[in-house]
Amino acid sequence: MERLHRKERVAAILKILSDNPNKIYSLGYFSEKFDVARSTLSEDVVIMKKLVEEIKCGTVETISGAAGGVKFIPGMADEDEIKFIEGLCKMLQSPDRIIPGGFIYMNDIIYSPDIVSKMGIIFAQRFQNRKPDYVVTVETKGIPIAIMTARALGIPLIIVRTDSRVTEGSTVSINYVTGSSKRIRTMSLSKRSVKPESKYIFIDDFMKAGGTSYGIYELMKEFSCECVGIGVAVESYTESKKVKEYFALMELKSVDEEKQEILIYPSKYYTEKLHH
Amino acid sequence: MERLHRKERVAAILKILSDNPNKIYSLGYFSEKFDVARSTLSEDVVIMKKLVEEIKCGTVETISGAAGGVKFIPGMADEDEIKFIEGLCKMLQSPDRIIPGGFIYMNDIIYSPDIVSKMGIIFAQRFQNRKPDYVVTVETKGIPIAIMTARALGIPLIIVRTDSRVTEGSTVSINYVTGSSKRIRTMSLSKRSVKPESKYIFIDDFMKAGGTSYGIYELMKEFSCECVGIGVAVESYTESKKVKEYFALMELKSVDEEKQEILIYPSKYYTEKLHH
Repeated sequence: MERLHRKERVAAILKILSDNPNKIYSLGYFSEKFDVARSTLSEDVVIMKKLVEEIKCGTVETISGAAGGVKFIPGMADEDEIKFIEGLCKMLQSPDRIIPGGFIYMNDIIYSPDIVSKMGIIFAQRFQNRKPDYVVTVETKGIPIAIMTARALGIPLIIVRTDSRVTEGSTVSINYVTGSSKRIRTMSLSKRSVKPESKYIFIDDFMKAGGTSYGIYELMKEFSCECVGIGVAVESYTESKKVKEYFALMELKSVDEEKQEILIYPSKYYTEKLHH
Repeated sequence: MERLHRKERVAAILKILSDNPNKIYSLGYFSEKFDVARSTLSEDVVIMKKLVEEIKCGTVETISGAAGGVKFIPGMADEDEIKFIEGLCKMLQSPDRIIPGGFIYMNDIIYSPDIVSKMGIIFAQRFQNRKPDYVVTVETKGIPIAIMTARALGIPLIIVRTDSRVTEGSTVSINYVTGSSKRIRTMSLSKRSVKPESKYIFIDDFMKAGGTSYGIYELMKEFSCECVGIGVAVESYTESKKVKEYFALMELKSVDEEKQEILIYPSKYYTEKLHH
């Protein structure tokens, strides 16, 4: 490779770091890759730190010590976050999303790579300091958001199945009661997919009464794992939830089939933030 | 925002482009964002083009005309691709992955954000020129790979369900026969999720006799959609497949429970490439 100038090298290093969020790269790695002195690289890092702060896309962190180096932590500015959430609410308000039975069609949103990448960064930013070892989700619709959250945190994803398939080896299963329809469902997870006594966050697309979150809690307890956060794209308005602490991006107040009206807003978290 | 120097601006623009693969940004957008003349930006673009070529992570393309601008197309160098695939085969060969019944445990691989991002870039690179409108997959295990492929191509993901859920509105369902176990299964897709007469690629984690791929073909035919590519992470060795053209990353030759041996190799595509 031709020796790069600083204007190229800074861009190249930032691209590598940002493609691999939360992964630590030693200065030695870049020093060898770009054939340049560590002291020069330290200056590059200073430029990068200032830059990502300036364009508000996260932070570049230096880790000292033997296993040290530099890593990129994705983030989003408060004003961009609220603008993004408001934009989603506007899209979801459209009456042609009403599905008979009082449901709302969201697949185009929760399967859009562009949108789920941003949701992933928001959830990661929210739960980063709780130091989760895994992102857990349950099949099917929450998977795209959950894998993007896992990507932003640089940790593995675990997908809990609602039937036990032969191809995953021995599994642990539990029965749980859905919070809204009071039906009994089964969830199962392959034994070898989790290290016992780990920390996890649970990510999903939708929360009604929180029965699924509670089921996940029960299932993960079988692995002695601790829940350090719950994040959902949309929570629907319900008097009581089976879980107390969770972070929702949006709150669905009502779907009125007769009036052809959907009321959906940024969640309490954002409305409280806006009033302060 | 403080006015950026070129060494910062090139990094900032490349970060934005590479976070939004295949999305066209006008020079006017960057000109306004960074308060800089278009002529200066044109020079930045020249630097970026040379740089991404140098570090072999894709291409920066300029699109002329009224809707023109600049976009980033992710890619991977041939030597990095084969090294990545060989690394995966090495991981998957480990005998402790054998699951009773002759299956192989892959969840840690196909749910790893780092690995599925790279697979997504490989599939995107492979099918980019066929100009698909959608990436299609079927629940559950292929979803992480499929969303990353959709992200790299900058197009939406469609998830076909194996049961029809009430929350997706009216659906089109088909019955199909699995290629290996000859069982009848159902697949369904919400009517509003696809524009008729679109092109799609089908992405999945595993292909045995190709029954699922053929089922998807039948289902998408109901929407007058055309399959322009099939990509799977692993194909298992079977004399005959129900589909003729597909691209696999790896080929699973055998899982021998008695000998505790898994034989898995880079697919024909790579082995042929290596011999030329």
